[in-house]
Amino acid sequence: MGFEAPERARIAYPRACWYVACESSALRKRPIARTVLGTPLALFRGDDARPAALLDRCAHRNLPLSEGHVLAGNVECPYHGWQYDAQGLCRRVPALAEAPEHKGRSVPAFPVVEQQGYIWVFMEPGRAPTGLPYSFPHLGDADYGSIRFASEVEATLHATLENMLDVPHTAFLHRGLFRGGPKRPITAIVRRFGDRAEAEYIGEPRPSGLAGRLLAPRGGTVVHFDRFLLPSIVQVEYRLDESHLVVTNALTPVADFHTRFVSVASFCLPLPSLLVRLVLEPLAKRIFRQDARILRLQTDAARRFGGESYVSTEVDLLGPHIWRLLKQAEQTGMPPAGAAPELERRVELHV
Amino acid sequence: MGFEAPERARIAYPRACWYVACESSALRKRPIARTVLGTPLALFRGDDARPAALLDRCAHRNLPLSEGHVLAGNVECPYHGWQYDAQGLCRRVPALAEAPEHKGRSVPAFPVVEQQGYIWVFMEPGRAPTGLPYSFPHLGDADYGSIRFASEVEATLHATLENMLDVPHTAFLHRGLFRGGPKRPITAIVRRFGDRAEAEYIGEPRPSGLAGRLLAPRGGTVVHFDRFLLPSIVQVEYRLDESHLVVTNALTPVADFHTRFVSVASFCLPLPSLLVRLVLEPLAKRIFRQDARILRLQTDAARRFGGESYVSTEVDLLGPHIWRLLKQAEQTGMPPAGAAPELERRVELHV
Amino acid sequence: MGFEAPERARIAYPRACWYVACESSALRKRPIARTVLGTPLALFRGDDARPAALLDRCAHRNLPLSEGHVLAGNVECPYHGWQYDAQGLCRRVPALAEAPEHKGRSVPAFPVVEQQGYIWVFMEPGRAPTGLPYSFPHLGDADYGSIRFASEVEATLHATLENMLDVPHTAFLHRGLFRGGPKRPITAIVRRFGDRAEAEYIGEPRPSGLAGRLLAPRGGTVVHFDRFLLPSIVQVEYRLDESHLVVTNALTPVADFHTRFVSVASFCLPLPSLLVRLVLEPLAKRIFRQDARILRLQTDAARRFGGESYVSTEVDLLGPHIWRLLKQAEQTGMPPAGAAPELERRVELHV
Repeated sequence: MGFEAPERARIAYPRACWYVACESSALRKRPIARTVLGTPLALFRGDDARPAALLDRCAHRNLPLSEGHVLAGNVECPYHGWQYDAQGLCRRVPALAEAPEHKGRSVPAFPVVEQQGYIWVFMEPGRAPTGLPYSFPHLGDADYGSIRFASEVEATLHATLENMLDVPHTAFLHRGLFRGGPKRPITAIVRRFGDRAEAEYIGEPRPSGLAGRLLAPRGGTVVHFDRFLLPSIVQVEYRLDESHLVVTNALTPVADFHTRFVSVASFCLPLPSLLVRLVLEPLAKRIFRQDARILRLQTDAARRFGGESYVSTEVDLLGPHIWRLLKQAEQTGMPPAGAAPELERRVELHV
Repeated sequence: MGFEAPERARIAYPRACWYVACESSALRKRPIARTVLGTPLALFRGDDARPAALLDRCAHRNLPLSEGHVLAGNVECPYHGWQYDAQGLCRRVPALAEAPEHKGRSVPAFPVVEQQGYIWVFMEPGRAPTGLPYSFPHLGDADYGSIRFASEVEATLHATLENMLDVPHTAFLHRGLFRGGPKRPITAIVRRFGDRAEAEYIGEPRPSGLAGRLLAPRGGTVVHFDRFLLPSIVQVEYRLDESHLVVTNALTPVADFHTRFVSVASFCLPLPSLLVRLVLEPLAKRIFRQDARILRLQTDAARRFGGESYVSTEVDLLGPHIWRLLKQAEQTGMPPAGAAPELERRVELHV
Repeated sequence: MGFEAPERARIAYPRACWYVACESSALRKRPIARTVLGTPLALFRGDDARPAALLDRCAHRNLPLSEGHVLAGNVECPYHGWQYDAQGLCRRVPALAEAPEHKGRSVPAFPVVEQQGYIWVFMEPGRAPTGLPYSFPHLGDADYGSIRFASEVEATLHATLENMLDVPHTAFLHRGLFRGGPKRPITAIVRRFGDRAEAEYIGEPRPSGLAGRLLAPRGGTVVHFDRFLLPSIVQVEYRLDESHLVVTNALTPVADFHTRFVSVASFCLPLPSLLVRLVLEPLAKRIFRQDARILRLQTDAARRFGGESYVSTEVDLLGPHIWRLLKQAEQTGMPPAGAAPELERRVELHV
């Protein structure tokens, strides 16, 4: 190719942190296979139905344990019937006369927490987890309704995070569904902290389009925050008088160009919950399909050109900060939560 | 593998020259994607419907511009709506307050010429093209009829070029369709010039088979030239009394083992043009299908063995010279047209 | 991945030895393509219908000879009609005036033996074969019936060999079909010789399950040997009073994770041959399907993790010895048949 060599794709994997492995409802009597950060996991319910996550590879002949069964809280390999407990210790080798427990026969076990209907896995098997998984706000609050959603995209973690928090493309790609009326200047304040980044939109009028009309039937000025939290949480928050909407996505990098996510929209709106659901759900799905197609095209380009080659402008409010935070966390581990911003910047954008 | 390691496949890409990107008729209101020399291009019609070719990657987030739209002579990216003109300069960033033109935001543009119904691209974006694209002879001449054809093969540029000019295989593979009667010795004079190679066949009787009967119903001795011109033109010319047939193919290397071509057959024959067309077209397509199958098998072998390992004889008249010219042009650029042959050789072959 | 790097997969290819290329019945008038040790072969019948094996690549332009025809004992390339005899010597170049025989134009030929209905190929083209191919015991003996079977698995040679001789998995994976009743201790004596390894089972009661009942209707103690012979023969032998059953598989590594095999079961049993066949065949096919699935899962794991990471116990009687013998034979060639065991070990296992 006769032009400048592209950079590698923006792929960074903070490892010693919590990711959603699956929904609680997906894990029943049989073990299941899930991949997180390229690592195949066998998930199963051990003693007292508590979830467990082992590397999905029997120590003996490497068969996937997720293809076996669960017996009395242990997972059993489908080839020779070796059994492992929730800690990955080998508890049975059927043909062997001696006791089966032997350190060399164990399988790496990952810390697991079940919380708010999701099973989270800490992706560093030999380390005590630092803190608890992220907790979705207002999920289960009496005043709030909630909608859950889950899907996956053929894109890097970074491209997906940036897309979910990017404002300019909404006025263009989702024209009519979400923004896209006559253009107005908005001021955004971008702040980067040690472990997160946010954009606050000042004096933003009610978003046009159907979503805007639903959120604030009487118009007015919105409080609007877009947030990224390490390692892979994105949140969009709108507030207007008594209306409040928080959409939080927890992303799971499956492989370099494959990202899953679970989504929780919590809302307190001057409308019946059922009506919100009937309008918001199909709208969100149409928006998601448009984004999923764009992200797949972006991935195709990275593959075809052997990497990415980005140019950013000041209206790419959060993408470059997300990349910086991901890259740092991959190299030096998860940072402490910073109270004061390391960086604050005002940007004017037209949407 | 316990035997001699094969060479790499014969892949050479002269870059600073013109290749057919598509037929004029394929490029209408929407941008289209074409790949030349492994480089993805977005083709579109800019001001005055003049064709333009940009690297098919938005400078911003790398989306393929060929997935967007054309607006007032600019091509628009489908993600954030960035717009580029025919020179690749960024002319609009919808959300940005400042002027969009900025050198870092431009996309490489390739010189384009539309000529004789084809859109040619010069594959070195930063350089002024040397000369004009190849011009097909007798296309549009009052005395000549013409047939156009276009297709693609799963083969290297070199294997396809050699196949199209190779005489011995016609008597074997295309037996009955084209040559293949009782064998006769023919003398060929091979000449290599700085930028091309040719074989002239001396005292060749009228080719047997259906094609021969059509070309020269009364028999006789044919003037027959096979020609290769850098970077990727092959031409077969037959002349007999007032009959004249020139078949010229312009090849486009899409990827290592993928070659497209457009074909122009121009003829002045003692037969109604419509009749020639009715006979020549299906015949040419049958011959092409046989060649396409053989080329695909040749490619399979190169892939399976990890490269090629050729032995040539003196009746491989042009293949080795084509390889030499391609390799030189890749390394030192397009040579000037040489008037006197660097090499001339007589070969006797039995076909 | 945050855990120990796996080893490469257990892939070793003793080359200077005989492998089954195909059944005699598969090779008729046309040449056929078979791959052995990753090497594409063109098999055809030359003079007197004697089988021949050439590297499946024409010396000229590398077309697969297996896509051509056989003419008067020579195989003919489909592109230009070059012809080769059973020794790989070029005997015809249609367009060439001079004699075609020329050392540079020949194709590597592999020694071939047709024996007991199979065509064996010696996979070192430049060397005189050491000895004859393996001969299946009791095939054609008047007192014995025989069943032949052939299939392929998506697995390494080593994983397939180990699976075919492994006893512990039979009691677990094939439960009910073959072993799997109440567990009993069995003593095995493992012996490794220079060119082979075997396990002899001492005081083993009649195997439970359908296969056991068929073999020895009156119960009793069985003589049972499991054997591996370099490079790729596995044999299971049962004897009880006048009953005798020998199942021998000859494996052919096609590619790293693709192994073919032919299987000969010879039996002398107190039952009509037809009845044995009616019961044994469907049973063997069910067992084979279970093993084929397990081997494919094992291959998936090796691919997903980029290699294998095995832990063995003493009840993995033959697998580790098979690997050692394969690896040695790959590096230093086929060893002589050793009369005395290099190693002998007693192991107790529960099956």
